[in-house]
Amino acid sequence: MASPLRALMNTTVYDAVKHPYYPLDANIAGYVANESTVMSLLGSFVAGCAAIFGLTYLAVKKVNPRLPTTELMTVMWFVLCGCIHFFFEGYFAYNHTNMGGLQTFFGQLWKEYALSDSRYLTQNVFVFCVEAMTAVLWGPLSFLVAVLIATEHPLRHPMQAAVSLGQCYGDLLYYATSMADHFYLGIEYSRPEAYYFWGYYFSANFFWIVIPAMLLYNSIKASADAIRQVQELKGSKKAM
Amino acid sequence: MASPLRALMNTTVYDAVKHPYYPLDANIAGYVANESTVMSLLGSFVAGCAAIFGLTYLAVKKVNPRLPTTELMTVMWFVLCGCIHFFFEGYFAYNHTNMGGLQTFFGQLWKEYALSDSRYLTQNVFVFCVEAMTAVLWGPLSFLVAVLIATEHPLRHPMQAAVSLGQCYGDLLYYATSMADHFYLGIEYSRPEAYYFWGYYFSANFFWIVIPAMLLYNSIKASADAIRQVQELKGSKKAM
Repeated sequence: MASPLRALMNTTVYDAVKHPYYPLDANIAGYVANESTVMSLLGSFVAGCAAIFGLTYLAVKKVNPRLPTTELMTVMWFVLCGCIHFFFEGYFAYNHTNMGGLQTFFGQLWKEYALSDSRYLTQNVFVFCVEAMTAVLWGPLSFLVAVLIATEHPLRHPMQAAVSLGQCYGDLLYYATSMADHFYLGIEYSRPEAYYFWGYYFSANFFWIVIPAMLLYNSIKASADAIRQVQELKGSKKAM
Repeated sequence: MASPLRALMNTTVYDAVKHPYYPLDANIAGYVANESTVMSLLGSFVAGCAAIFGLTYLAVKKVNPRLPTTELMTVMWFVLCGCIHFFFEGYFAYNHTNMGGLQTFFGQLWKEYALSDSRYLTQNVFVFCVEAMTAVLWGPLSFLVAVLIATEHPLRHPMQAAVSLGQCYGDLLYYATSMADHFYLGIEYSRPEAYYFWGYYFSANFFWIVIPAMLLYNSIKASADAIRQVQELKGSKKAM
């Protein structure tokens, strides 16, 4: 084989496997390995979440000190959701064409998470669309729901149901599309180590199935209970 | 060029363009052209919808003759949705790996629609997942909402909001994914004739944005109104 051709082929093979993501031949534009350690990235993320919880707790205690504890916890959940959807997932949606080379904190966090789902680095169309819609729709609406809960507004339960359903549905589609790629096309987006698949891909997203499902159930029930009471009231007035 | 190689290449080119779908090199497994005419397919579909409307109208008039006309029309909408989601879209989800060769009524209808979006014939993972979830979730729940409206059940508005939001969100993602493929990758899934893009792809799906958005708004408002009334009632009781 002529040596320039061999050199070209070697370059191509090298390009195809010079990243740790699966499938190993995934095309990750401009990939650069993270500068920060995993511990510092995850530690900073957890510290950020704790700060959001703490500030929200203090703000709610000031605005509405009589708010029951479960309601306060729900406000904290929605403020966390708002921050993650709007800033973190919004950052991904905005930069989705050049995620592989980013060395910012959010960029490196996404590259760490992508070890469990390389679609975040390969400009996958579904992941971009669902993340963009999550950022634009459920991000601001999560903040709105937090305010509606803290102020005990009548729109709280209808809007909480809407945001929670949106989160659940988007997350189910997120799971479903990668599972379908796995079962129909045999494509694995996660590295083979179990902690990436179960620790990142499964667990991190499972929160956004379980908690929204519970909140959706509570909100549907709260709305239906109120409607039932109004119906009974109207019925008893008619009977008088 | 050696003739077996030329023959092989001709076969490949022929295979790649022997269907009318875009992009012309889309791989459509086992494609067979429709046996029925477009007029008979679309005519039968419209007749089917009319029959569903008619039967639902008669059933509701028997069960709850005092139901207001707008409510009756909403029941008809949800029964139509239930039929389309569960039977028509469910049929696609069940057969999505071999749609190209089907000569059943539903199979031919999907092949006609796919002229505006070839993803229905190419085993596109997102389209399969969103259609499967629409069939399994919003299909049965649409029938449930129809019953809840006809019986004036307190769960009607919370469930109507849930189904309508699910339809809207799925549809927005459906639009968004093909638009993203168009803008980022330059892929066109619709044939170039405007009536396929605007008549099938845009219009047929736009119903499932506009009508669910209106129903979602109404249901959020109805739930919030009831909650407000109950809050006021509790407030006035406390004040006594």
